[in-house]
Amino acid sequence: MAPEPPHLPAQELRRAVASLVVVRASGHLTDPQRHYPRWELPNATLRRLLAEGVGGVILLGGSTAEVRLRTRQLATWSSQPLLFCADVEEGVGQRFEGASWLPPPMSVGRIHAHDPEAALALAAAYGRCTAREARQIGLNWILAPVCDVNNNPANPVINVRAWGEDPATVSALTAAFIAAAQAEGVLCCAKHFPGHGDTTGDSHLELPVLAHSRERLEAIELPPFQRAIAADVASVMTGHLLLSALDDQRPATLSAAVLSQLLRQDMGFGGLVVTDALVMEAITAHHGPGEAAVLAMEAGADLVLMPADADAAIEALVGAINGGRLSPTRLQQSLRRRQLALERLLPEPVQPPCEPLGPLSNGPDGADQRLALTLLQRSLERQGGVLTPVARGADGQGLGVSLVRVDGLLSCPFLSPTAPALTLPEAAGFRCQLVDGLRPADADLVPPGDTPVLLQLFIRGNPFRGSAGKAEPWVALLDLLGQQGRLAGLAVYGSPYLWQSLRGRIPANLPAAWSPGQMPGAQTLLLTSLGLGDSVAQAGFTD
Amino acid sequence: MAPEPPHLPAQELRRAVASLVVVRASGHLTDPQRHYPRWELPNATLRRLLAEGVGGVILLGGSTAEVRLRTRQLATWSSQPLLFCADVEEGVGQRFEGASWLPPPMSVGRIHAHDPEAALALAAAYGRCTAREARQIGLNWILAPVCDVNNNPANPVINVRAWGEDPATVSALTAAFIAAAQAEGVLCCAKHFPGHGDTTGDSHLELPVLAHSRERLEAIELPPFQRAIAADVASVMTGHLLLSALDDQRPATLSAAVLSQLLRQDMGFGGLVVTDALVMEAITAHHGPGEAAVLAMEAGADLVLMPADADAAIEALVGAINGGRLSPTRLQQSLRRRQLALERLLPEPVQPPCEPLGPLSNGPDGADQRLALTLLQRSLERQGGVLTPVARGADGQGLGVSLVRVDGLLSCPFLSPTAPALTLPEAAGFRCQLVDGLRPADADLVPPGDTPVLLQLFIRGNPFRGSAGKAEPWVALLDLLGQQGRLAGLAVYGSPYLWQSLRGRIPANLPAAWSPGQMPGAQTLLLTSLGLGDSVAQAGFTD
Repeated sequence: MAPEPPHLPAQELRRAVASLVVVRASGHLTDPQRHYPRWELPNATLRRLLAEGVGGVILLGGSTAEVRLRTRQLATWSSQPLLFCADVEEGVGQRFEGASWLPPPMSVGRIHAHDPEAALALAAAYGRCTAREARQIGLNWILAPVCDVNNNPANPVINVRAWGEDPATVSALTAAFIAAAQAEGVLCCAKHFPGHGDTTGDSHLELPVLAHSRERLEAIELPPFQRAIAADVASVMTGHLLLSALDDQRPATLSAAVLSQLLRQDMGFGGLVVTDALVMEAITAHHGPGEAAVLAMEAGADLVLMPADADAAIEALVGAINGGRLSPTRLQQSLRRRQLALERLLPEPVQPPCEPLGPLSNGPDGADQRLALTLLQRSLERQGGVLTPVARGADGQGLGVSLVRVDGLLSCPFLSPTAPALTLPEAAGFRCQLVDGLRPADADLVPPGDTPVLLQLFIRGNPFRGSAGKAEPWVALLDLLGQQGRLAGLAVYGSPYLWQSLRGRIPANLPAAWSPGQMPGAQTLLLTSLGLGDSVAQAGFTD
Repeated sequence: MAPEPPHLPAQELRRAVASLVVVRASGHLTDPQRHYPRWELPNATLRRLLAEGVGGVILLGGSTAEVRLRTRQLATWSSQPLLFCADVEEGVGQRFEGASWLPPPMSVGRIHAHDPEAALALAAAYGRCTAREARQIGLNWILAPVCDVNNNPANPVINVRAWGEDPATVSALTAAFIAAAQAEGVLCCAKHFPGHGDTTGDSHLELPVLAHSRERLEAIELPPFQRAIAADVASVMTGHLLLSALDDQRPATLSAAVLSQLLRQDMGFGGLVVTDALVMEAITAHHGPGEAAVLAMEAGADLVLMPADADAAIEALVGAINGGRLSPTRLQQSLRRRQLALERLLPEPVQPPCEPLGPLSNGPDGADQRLALTLLQRSLERQGGVLTPVARGADGQGLGVSLVRVDGLLSCPFLSPTAPALTLPEAAGFRCQLVDGLRPADADLVPPGDTPVLLQLFIRGNPFRGSAGKAEPWVALLDLLGQQGRLAGLAVYGSPYLWQSLRGRIPANLPAAWSPGQMPGAQTLLLTSLGLGDSVAQAGFTD
């Protein structure tokens, strides 16, 4: 056994510890633009923390042009190379306006069921697209792929974010993603170890408890992570999950049994272990911000993501090392792994970041547009005939109604006033009526009279939602409209499980369709498949 | 009389004509980011038109960082200096995220009634702030100030965009704005000539007809424009208004009697005359895109803004000159005026546009933040006591309701899920229920039971709305809630006229307030004045 390295001087120790902390920033340049000021540090604080040695930033929000400037700005506030990461699980456009927004990974999983070769090629293209666009805006670390096996249809938070419902599919597709993305010169992150696919709780809100045996984990949850490690994935993210068979005290994120024994020793992972956001309720409900960081490092994590209080986390980690609770060796291991990860990165693109005419300046390139369209086309499911247009009243208003349900009307990037889900039905005589899943009106949802109703449901498993709409009245409403003979059609954007459960309740000839995607392209494709609008050209995809 | 200049060669003539056309572009860099693809040209078309000599671009949308790159991008597509303009009537932040979003000009007008000196200083600060931030993102032409005298409370489109309700107030404040803004090196635009303040129709949707005599115009509508000309305003924008006493055939935009006789001859304006957007219904319902441009130039306009079809406009103008309908002299006059306007501009700021660390990168500067706060504080009106917090039910939900009415939930920059208008009432036990003015639910708006109701109305005169909510049920609802003893409070954000009409119907001790502003700062200030939250610090204003 090697001798313990000497203790670092106080200032150096503090900077070393800080380099293992990843803080959250808005992708916008100015403080007032922050959408989540509760979580996104103001610029003055970011600047101070980066000057003090904080080593990573997770970004959310802003256009690609803005984020490209933002990563440069943040880099100038630091004297070391930084890790810049983002939750770009569904393409960079999922988080940053102006880049490619791809249909969720489950779309690839569905294709894999009947055409595995095509699905593998699509997963690789998915990784390449994400990595290339990430680098163009200054990100070097993709917090993807989700390696969870979504074998629980009631899962409120993974759902379509997963690449499949069985270990073989998820393993094959995520490995293809990782290999392709990392070949472009960025780091990937397999998450959420040891597997968040069979939970019914949302770890953003509470700590899910899983009673799976080690054998069960080895059969279902672990294979994708084992495969990711074999594919040389640069990092693994821990899940805030209590696996009682492995450690009945601590969630995976804080468990030595899970991180040091299972992940490092048994599975042989030598790369970066990063916690999921420590600010999530599953952690903060039980531990203070400093203690959570120390427990994570003690358990074997290298990087702590979004501690509830970055200063408290740094302070506590310094105290734990000075007090002998964390060894200098443990610190040096994590510093070394961070350094090795940075050395894997390709040099930054030569294109000067201030140049507005790069590949992103005219939108996603042709290949990436075709990728999104291919995924949408090949994952679409439909049944029945086409929608019958509805007549208009004397006031020119359509006499039909389309109930459009989204999670939250106030923050809905896929539903602008000119979104196809509104304009195409309105052109066919269906007045759109919006229903906010977060703040549903108390009023009865059934439109009065005997108007035909086109039901459009945007529901998927989303973090912070607590459920994928399962307490909502869609089954009952569908039955009622069916009994009244008023159900004109059904469109489900998102959850395949909701689609399956509703599909079983409608007549086979009812015009109905499902897309895993919710973006405008998905809306156009789905609604044109039901006979609205007139051509795929309207999907906004052009070569 | 000078001899007619020689005819230009065909290619040169086409480029010359094109330089007088101003086309619309999104402020975003990529096509898929456009929010209004119907009006905002795609990049390929923009690039071609600019290469063919189009001389101006009006921009809307995007963050300041993005627009700064966008103006540079567009400039590289042109071989001549371009006019870059935007409707930044309420600060650059009204249109572009990350800059100062100021309360509407009517807030200054209200202050002028009791403190004219302060109001003049505030109007000058308003102009300086707008001009300085405009230049920082590459704009050189501010389509402000609105010089209309809003003396008609039923005006659906001007309303709080005006600087006042009488000619003296509007004249004094807009002249102060113009002098201060133009001193910063940008061009201003007095609009909408000869005065859109006394209309009840919206020229975006129909052509308003005004029967005012010349004497009446000289008493009410014209003084602000006369004063703007005296203040050396660089440009005047025409209104799509039929002034039957001056020209009973043609709207001002297309009328030689209004533009050449009244504005040029009688009022002595030698600067640039620009049409309001020719794509508006008031014009397109009567004239094709080419003919509208020719009629405007014939009438005396120099620049045509947003023709419904730029190619058709250029084609028709070339044809009109070749066919003798427009004289070469007329063309040369407009080219000369455009050249003189460009020569008035200060050179571009020395700060390289790719530098992310400019004054805007950390948000509006302190002086501009104080300006916004001062305007909000000094224009706030309130009455009655403070709101009584409401108890919570067993589920933790507040037992009160706050009905929050906005024009459109899907496109509401001032109401994010964390907006003070939602979070402050919710913290005091009022569950927020959203009402979409564009797509109101059919259901009865009265919350069931006997819960207390805080009514929050975001209503102002907005283009394309057709009315400032006047067909909506707020008076009746207010009366009903009052009778039931359930009205807890009233907040009006926007129209002072709605506030006046509702204020007359509520008891003097009911907690109620009005702010001309709708942005988060206005929400915090208004609601804290009613006793919610706890401090002005939450307004998001910091020094």
